[in-house]
Amino acid sequence: MNDIILLAYGSGGKLSHELVEKEFLPSLTNPMLNKLDDSAIFEASGRFAFTTDSYVVNPIFFPGGDIGKLAICGTVNDLSMSGAKPLYLSLSAIIEEGFSLKELERIVQSIEAAAEEAEVSIITGDTKVVNQGQADKLFINTSGIGMIPAEIDISGANAKGGDKIILSGTIGDHGIAIMSQREGLRFSVPVESDCAPLNKLVAQMLEVSFNIHCLRDPTRGGLATTLNEFAKQSNVGIVIQEDKIPVKEGVKAACELLGFDPIYVANEGKLVAVVEPDDADKVLAQMKQNSYGRDAAIIGEVISEHPGRVIMKTKLGPSRIVDMLSGELLPRIC
Amino acid sequence: MNDIILLAYGSGGKLSHELVEKEFLPSLTNPMLNKLDDSAIFEASGRFAFTTDSYVVNPIFFPGGDIGKLAICGTVNDLSMSGAKPLYLSLSAIIEEGFSLKELERIVQSIEAAAEEAEVSIITGDTKVVNQGQADKLFINTSGIGMIPAEIDISGANAKGGDKIILSGTIGDHGIAIMSQREGLRFSVPVESDCAPLNKLVAQMLEVSFNIHCLRDPTRGGLATTLNEFAKQSNVGIVIQEDKIPVKEGVKAACELLGFDPIYVANEGKLVAVVEPDDADKVLAQMKQNSYGRDAAIIGEVISEHPGRVIMKTKLGPSRIVDMLSGELLPRIC
Repeated sequence: MNDIILLAYGSGGKLSHELVEKEFLPSLTNPMLNKLDDSAIFEASGRFAFTTDSYVVNPIFFPGGDIGKLAICGTVNDLSMSGAKPLYLSLSAIIEEGFSLKELERIVQSIEAAAEEAEVSIITGDTKVVNQGQADKLFINTSGIGMIPAEIDISGANAKGGDKIILSGTIGDHGIAIMSQREGLRFSVPVESDCAPLNKLVAQMLEVSFNIHCLRDPTRGGLATTLNEFAKQSNVGIVIQEDKIPVKEGVKAACELLGFDPIYVANEGKLVAVVEPDDADKVLAQMKQNSYGRDAAIIGEVISEHPGRVIMKTKLGPSRIVDMLSGELLPRIC
Repeated sequence: MNDIILLAYGSGGKLSHELVEKEFLPSLTNPMLNKLDDSAIFEASGRFAFTTDSYVVNPIFFPGGDIGKLAICGTVNDLSMSGAKPLYLSLSAIIEEGFSLKELERIVQSIEAAAEEAEVSIITGDTKVVNQGQADKLFINTSGIGMIPAEIDISGANAKGGDKIILSGTIGDHGIAIMSQREGLRFSVPVESDCAPLNKLVAQMLEVSFNIHCLRDPTRGGLATTLNEFAKQSNVGIVIQEDKIPVKEGVKAACELLGFDPIYVANEGKLVAVVEPDDADKVLAQMKQNSYGRDAAIIGEVISEHPGRVIMKTKLGPSRIVDMLSGELLPRIC
């Protein structure tokens, strides 16, 4: 094979088969994928979660991950946020002609590692190649299917007055890692993306409580946007305390320098849970047992007043309304 | 709203919500999609088919369809080719900054129409926006889930010596339609893409026979590549007769002019079925009842000799080996 992607790798003919057989199958092998029919087939029964995301992150390699790891974790996390156990993923790549096969191999390896950690199988896929200049290197779509246990009912619309809001750890790591890499910024404390699969953390939370009302990973738009979505979908108010929100020193410094507010910066390995007040402490304690929830904290609560609004009690004292992200902070963050 | 896509429409914040609520939800509305949680939820039980495809066709509007119709039909067809009844689709768009909202609306309408015809629901979605010049207008990924009735066992690996090969209609229409549009070619007989959802045709075929061994839609790589896939997956030989393969006059003329062989040109509304010999005639008769199978024909058969090879008896008399497509015929055909 050549050492770059040729247009003919997307032809559907010989070279397409060669690309799949040499680059994707050896790493991602499983009986369902290996059949190479138009669809993969599986048997199951119950309540399913189905989700999709396209990943266009720039740069494709960044501190703490790459577009491959991100594409697996992002979709695993979207499934997990409905309380589902992620099972099967699809993987579809749009590759720019001339892209390095070596870089593709690194990305496939990182897809393999992330899928292994999350214990999901990639069972169906697709590859397209576009002419040079018609896409930027590599875009990946993953869609995923998971199974939701019968007792679970998690939705952004389920928050109730009195519920506690738990954040699983520090915010802004992913966005600042991407930003620093893209702009060639160096900070004295280097920031890595938090990109991680959260399905096991969620499973552990559900072991101690079925009274988790909402779950969401605050990706694009950050914590502020996720809380606003909850407030609007559930028609409740939300109050958070700025001094309870964990932010790493490096992220804090970078945000100050760049004029960002960390509550709007994207995360890829964090979740926000809205939990029945009586269960909040045990859910929090359980989260702290998992390495992805070590810095978890209760950052606020749901109230019945001012439905649809998020209020933050600032460190300096006064409260302010926290709106959804308006405008664009960092394009191609995921 | 502006009349073009801004980067901020991909921010995950306010404008992203506005884009989804104004451009996608009104057309694609259904209770599962409308919840706007990270995953859509459905209940089911049995054997499932799961498939994915990214669509990068250029131009995005072409005679007989557009990228939206293609994205629905392509994934519906991939599900159908496993014998599944397509149920749920995901829809993920990567949009270039500056793309026309009016064109996006036309495409969403055509997605709606195609989904309606195929009786599938789009239940989860995603939108990304990349900077101008980092993608070419619009790429769409659809993934799909279908249910396979218990009696069905269709795979490219199931062809057996003696089986008949049925083609559902004329070949090359999609590839030539795209090519003509892209290059500004005008033929005296205009060629339209055959882009169509084939799930009902397949359902009708399965009504009269469970002895359909293989099904595949000959998209990229054309009829020749699909037959080679069957020959290799099933480890059988295949013989087809050139004079039985239906080709429209306009496609024939265009292929002669451009030096293409229609058996390598892409189709988006055709299928190849490998059927138990005793059932072939009744399957064929049933196909002819459906408007998408009107021109169906038995074009050859499976043999035990020369496994892995496809032979074509040409109109002029001698036989020749038909290989998979090698190299690239038409980039971005789907």
